[in-house]
Amino acid sequence: MATQRILDFLATRRPSGPCLVVDLDVVRDNFRAFQKALPDSKIYYAVKANPAPEILRLLATMGSSFDTASVAEVEMAMDAGAPAHRISFGNTIKKERDIARAYQLGIRLFAVDCVEEVEKIARVAPAARVFCRVLTDGAGAEWPLSRKFGCVPAMAVDVLRHAKSLGLDAYGVSFHVGSQQTDLNAWDRALGDAKKVFSTLAEEGIVLKMVNMGGGFPTRYLRDVPVAQDYGQAIFSALRRHFGNAIPETIIEPGRGMVGNAGVIKSEVVLISKKADNDNVRWVFLDIGKFGGLAETMDEAIRYAITTAYDGTETAPCVLAGPTCDSADVMYEKTPYPLPLSLTIGDDVLIEGTGAYTTTYSAVAFNGFEPLRSYVI
Amino acid sequence: MATQRILDFLATRRPSGPCLVVDLDVVRDNFRAFQKALPDSKIYYAVKANPAPEILRLLATMGSSFDTASVAEVEMAMDAGAPAHRISFGNTIKKERDIARAYQLGIRLFAVDCVEEVEKIARVAPAARVFCRVLTDGAGAEWPLSRKFGCVPAMAVDVLRHAKSLGLDAYGVSFHVGSQQTDLNAWDRALGDAKKVFSTLAEEGIVLKMVNMGGGFPTRYLRDVPVAQDYGQAIFSALRRHFGNAIPETIIEPGRGMVGNAGVIKSEVVLISKKADNDNVRWVFLDIGKFGGLAETMDEAIRYAITTAYDGTETAPCVLAGPTCDSADVMYEKTPYPLPLSLTIGDDVLIEGTGAYTTTYSAVAFNGFEPLRSYVI
Repeated sequence: MATQRILDFLATRRPSGPCLVVDLDVVRDNFRAFQKALPDSKIYYAVKANPAPEILRLLATMGSSFDTASVAEVEMAMDAGAPAHRISFGNTIKKERDIARAYQLGIRLFAVDCVEEVEKIARVAPAARVFCRVLTDGAGAEWPLSRKFGCVPAMAVDVLRHAKSLGLDAYGVSFHVGSQQTDLNAWDRALGDAKKVFSTLAEEGIVLKMVNMGGGFPTRYLRDVPVAQDYGQAIFSALRRHFGNAIPETIIEPGRGMVGNAGVIKSEVVLISKKADNDNVRWVFLDIGKFGGLAETMDEAIRYAITTAYDGTETAPCVLAGPTCDSADVMYEKTPYPLPLSLTIGDDVLIEGTGAYTTTYSAVAFNGFEPLRSYVI
Repeated sequence: MATQRILDFLATRRPSGPCLVVDLDVVRDNFRAFQKALPDSKIYYAVKANPAPEILRLLATMGSSFDTASVAEVEMAMDAGAPAHRISFGNTIKKERDIARAYQLGIRLFAVDCVEEVEKIARVAPAARVFCRVLTDGAGAEWPLSRKFGCVPAMAVDVLRHAKSLGLDAYGVSFHVGSQQTDLNAWDRALGDAKKVFSTLAEEGIVLKMVNMGGGFPTRYLRDVPVAQDYGQAIFSALRRHFGNAIPETIIEPGRGMVGNAGVIKSEVVLISKKADNDNVRWVFLDIGKFGGLAETMDEAIRYAITTAYDGTETAPCVLAGPTCDSADVMYEKTPYPLPLSLTIGDDVLIEGTGAYTTTYSAVAFNGFEPLRSYVI
């Protein structure tokens, strides 16, 4: 999946140490694919997936809006050229002083999932728009979705009613079907829940205007995933089914789906060894691991495609681990990873589809290793 | 467990945002307790546990040696005043160019666990001392110990024999009983394995001189743990039992045991909410989580003691989560954490025993949140 531009960059620049290389052409293509697949939805790029300034500037220029998780991310999006009205403060967990700061910066769209958060916003961001996140079951998602965000639909009704009573603009409902979601029906179930909240509040004269359909759009790791066009069709059908001719304003928040397949991590094989003469798996140690940017291998959740110079030759199962002195810094052990028998200490490997959720997860300096470097080309 | 000095610092300086405060007096006491408990062992502080320059300088002045995981950590220890002969390159996974760099800096003591690593060292660090890490079962440890480091004792014999044949100094054996180890018998089992390697090689005329007994010395979280004196006695008895009158040179590598109880994280309650009206657990969201320094809550492995201004009043079970938009950023959910019912949004809490394995685990900028700040007093 590494593009020719990425391969050329690595071949000519030969950066030392592990690094991520992101190809902006792929990000551009992804943005256009989302626009085409869901022409009536506004795209709010999830900054947390990869906040590299080059990516934010490109997307700002293309007209993207931005979903942010903190004041720092609001500022990053603004620095990249996004006006405040194209930025959503999408984290449901915000300090009141951070809400106030975002409001000062011009932000008028905030996520909530409880009355306590509504009260903070009412105090420091008068008349702002709020949308309430509703819990979904997350079935079909590869990255685990806990109950951390959202509330049950019945409570969302209370939360939005409370927002209205405090002078806020009860603007809509959001959900998240779970990251790397490959089940097209997941959006249908969530939209059904959203519609219930719309209907209940409409009976009280509170007219919601927006459904934030979140992210979850997958990137291709080892298995094929549905393309944006398939998602678009499934989502549009579900909107039509639940909302009929009164389809509300919609937002999507792709992060992984926007940048995941745009990046490749180059890593070096530091050691290949066995633990005993009769072991049938080799241990392959890379110079990047769970604490250097591959945090999403936690519980072996995300299984990246790894390419080597020997692809197509005979492979054998390997345990894949990182370079730190931490025994938890093992990426794939329960399900060993097949790698070529010819792979040798000192060889480079490419970890594909790593444009999202890698650089920023990287630890500051665990074991003295510097954070993952990144080149955006 | 927060010392008066830490409480005074927080009360007078009132730092904003989450931060770790480390009391050097506690580190000093811990170092002396290890010296007293194991007077014949050399103490190699595991720099990765907390590489704050103030901690390294204090320990260098007190005569400590240092266990390092990377060239960067070697340099940190030297910058703190440690001479090269008091530094061990204890990571079994090293790039050959990093071994060469450490050798140039004067390092002569290296960890290995396979012949492949021995060959790297023989090429670029001629005549250096090597010790081979032996696998232990890790039973009794709270932080999971995988098979990542070490080899079976029979292979350790081959590895050290190979080192000798390549002109290296086959110096000894190391093991690690697992971090936060509370079973005093763990050292006895591992020392028995070490002795076997000594005996087998002695029959071939290869006389090992050192046993590196690693770390694993626990710090107190919620439960009481044996004190250094108890460890010292158990270890000395085991050495006597296995090695008789020929007790070799010994090394210990405390990290958590040296700094864990010296530090306290101050964090703010960002939100307290429920997911449904009939939920019987509250969700408490702090401004620090799994990606801000509390990585060791992974799989709820380490359960920190948390103190509040309301301790002693009625509590109720809470799910404890971090501030990021990541659904995996939940510290305690399977086993909810009892917190006072009076706890309110905006309150500070103290997370005790967090001097080790927090600051450096912290993510660079996940969700735009800055890495954990640290004050060493």
